[in-house]
Amino acid sequence: MNKNKAELFDIPSFSSGKQSLDAGIRASHVSARAFSMQPVFGIDRWLLRWLLKVVGNPPIGFLLWNGEEVSLGGNVPTARVFIADRWALLRLIANPDLHFGDCYSSGRIDVEEDLVKFLETVYRASTAVPSGGMKQRMISRTRRTHPNTPAGSRDNIHKHYDIGNDFYQLWLDEQMVYTCAYFPTPGATLEQAQVAKMDHVCRKLHLRPGETVVEAGCGWGALARHMARHYGVKVKAYNISHEQVVFARERASAEGLEGLVEYIEDDYRNISGDFDAFVSVGMLEHVGADHYRELGDIIHHCLRDSGRGLIHSIGRNQAKPMNAWIERRIFPGAYPPTLAEMMRILEPWEYSVLDVENLRLHYARTLEHWLWRFEKAADRVTAMFDESFVRAWRLYLAGSIAAFRVSDMQLFQVVFAPRSNNDIPWTRDRLYVPDRQPEG
Amino acid sequence: MNKNKAELFDIPSFSSGKQSLDAGIRASHVSARAFSMQPVFGIDRWLLRWLLKVVGNPPIGFLLWNGEEVSLGGNVPTARVFIADRWALLRLIANPDLHFGDCYSSGRIDVEEDLVKFLETVYRASTAVPSGGMKQRMISRTRRTHPNTPAGSRDNIHKHYDIGNDFYQLWLDEQMVYTCAYFPTPGATLEQAQVAKMDHVCRKLHLRPGETVVEAGCGWGALARHMARHYGVKVKAYNISHEQVVFARERASAEGLEGLVEYIEDDYRNISGDFDAFVSVGMLEHVGADHYRELGDIIHHCLRDSGRGLIHSIGRNQAKPMNAWIERRIFPGAYPPTLAEMMRILEPWEYSVLDVENLRLHYARTLEHWLWRFEKAADRVTAMFDESFVRAWRLYLAGSIAAFRVSDMQLFQVVFAPRSNNDIPWTRDRLYVPDRQPEG
Repeated sequence: MNKNKAELFDIPSFSSGKQSLDAGIRASHVSARAFSMQPVFGIDRWLLRWLLKVVGNPPIGFLLWNGEEVSLGGNVPTARVFIADRWALLRLIANPDLHFGDCYSSGRIDVEEDLVKFLETVYRASTAVPSGGMKQRMISRTRRTHPNTPAGSRDNIHKHYDIGNDFYQLWLDEQMVYTCAYFPTPGATLEQAQVAKMDHVCRKLHLRPGETVVEAGCGWGALARHMARHYGVKVKAYNISHEQVVFARERASAEGLEGLVEYIEDDYRNISGDFDAFVSVGMLEHVGADHYRELGDIIHHCLRDSGRGLIHSIGRNQAKPMNAWIERRIFPGAYPPTLAEMMRILEPWEYSVLDVENLRLHYARTLEHWLWRFEKAADRVTAMFDESFVRAWRLYLAGSIAAFRVSDMQLFQVVFAPRSNNDIPWTRDRLYVPDRQPEG
Repeated sequence: MNKNKAELFDIPSFSSGKQSLDAGIRASHVSARAFSMQPVFGIDRWLLRWLLKVVGNPPIGFLLWNGEEVSLGGNVPTARVFIADRWALLRLIANPDLHFGDCYSSGRIDVEEDLVKFLETVYRASTAVPSGGMKQRMISRTRRTHPNTPAGSRDNIHKHYDIGNDFYQLWLDEQMVYTCAYFPTPGATLEQAQVAKMDHVCRKLHLRPGETVVEAGCGWGALARHMARHYGVKVKAYNISHEQVVFARERASAEGLEGLVEYIEDDYRNISGDFDAFVSVGMLEHVGADHYRELGDIIHHCLRDSGRGLIHSIGRNQAKPMNAWIERRIFPGAYPPTLAEMMRILEPWEYSVLDVENLRLHYARTLEHWLWRFEKAADRVTAMFDESFVRAWRLYLAGSIAAFRVSDMQLFQVVFAPRSNNDIPWTRDRLYVPDRQPEG
């Protein structure tokens, strides 16, 4: 994204810090800050400087509980992290990936700067840390504790997606699409961009009226309804989130789409039938790399030889463990794969990969919209849950923006087809000039 | 590609068999066929039936040296393979992948049918053969004998690309582009499609005037000249084929491009400098999977953080040894990787994959054009080399058409960028509607 394009955005940019809503919230915290009489020792300062070195020496400083400031020499701090007590400091040292999030949520750690900008600064610095260093060893201490067996998946999904449709309605678009949008131009609204994403997916799948589609992990069901309404296909959509399925069925019924869309509350491993298209948008992150072969087998059993498939997933440039705090507190069991890991789904059955598009900056943009709406609704979210919940979700959304912008998070849309299917679009023209090339 | 689109082609389709030039050539062979008095034994018939089963029971039959026909019961043969003597039969049984090609070249095996159609029939049947079966074991007998060390590569490349520019001029386009073309419509000419491919590559690389580009493996130099002339960039293009470099320099000089394009007769491993773009079209097939890490290191050393890269290569859906005959007789040392294997180049340095496009059917189409021109020039090729050379290259071109159409050969164009580069196109629109979104 070019810088001059960013200025065209019709919502505040969370990178500039100038209009940042987060900065406003931070200011209120700072004004309320009360320092304690707990003394700071030399070891406290030494530990903090060691931590800075381990994470690649980002230009940040610390404000300690007694009002003392600590930073590395030679760096002018662009942001300050407030640490409320020694307990928070020791937790941070013991496992920064996990406890920064926990202590931020509880308010024992705070950031005196635009949160996205701060996280970008930290991510940029840690890029320079060589693999196998202390940071990697600290991260690898964290073991995955949320397996994605059928029962495990149900539990993992329940913990994130079943916390209340009314909560998600506060900050998602009207259609409740909780995956990366596609912004035809950076200034498109979130609503426009989610519709554009659904059209982009449908065009990539080359859907034709009367065809049958199976969707693995359908969220609140917007894509299934969109495909049925605008592309004339019949959809079976699977999901193990009870709350989402209830919502999806109600919407489909209200929109008169019951005959075309069937929402099935079941695991992707139980998909059965025979379909012209397989689509999965934002589920693969929850499948877990151990289960890709299983997913490939499911696709092979349900997709016709003349069929097409699309998998849309958060990914990475290099295989790494998921951020420990996100995996524990936000998305239990989640794992964003590399493109090579995604191929473990498709290679055993020799699917031809037709198209991969990386929508990384579109996800950053989507998250900016979500965070902006989330902040507007923060008081209502506090009333629904509590202040620490608001702070945790703020960190998750802001951290995701930073990760898609400057760390190695990617968003891959992978289109594939059985190798014997030659009835595939000749070029990708029709994705961009749909009126020029009528379907053949 | 839709069937009705195929009918729009302005050159004979090698799949229909109706207008096939190859069929005409075959007919002349058949009319000249003389049978021998060498007897056929029960073991000969048994071996041939066993071979048919091993390769998945394609609907083909054999015509033996004494005029006897052999086929599997239950299958009406759609093509007949003539075997001239027992020596050819035993070679075929011993290693069908290698010796079919050798015996076809020498004329001891012939195909009484459109050659592409015949090979498609065989490839389709062998798809159904499970991995680990007899065919796989027979293939795995073949050991790679052409390593891609610097000296090995020079030898491998010399054997294919240095056999004579005048030979390649007989059947390539005027600009001598010997890689998959991009046909905006299936009916485009080869010349149009090669120019369109070069533009497609340049747009994907988001080239801007004044930038510097390094090209690894530049063939006869057409892309380097195209980039310099139409995109205002300075290009350093590496190649270890002496004949190609000589030709490329002459063309650049004749076109007044010496100041912008430098052709360097050297190995990709010796690339040095600092560039805005890295491009490699049709070289990766010759690099060998053992050397991908090295190639990734080279890219990392020469590509700026603000840069973009593109690798265009033949690929496969599943890792398999290269066809033995092609690797021995046509492309020594060649290996088409899977997409996952290609990631071994990019993952160690955390490059972001931005775009992958599969141009499989475009390569089939490109090869149809080449084979059509090759057949028109067959007499001149015979005069340059001999009849067995013509038959070997006919088999290579026809086999490649069949492999891109019905087997698992793919053509991947992979666009990537350093992970910190956010100055990347917002969408892929500009590849398709270049006038709508000015660069910027």
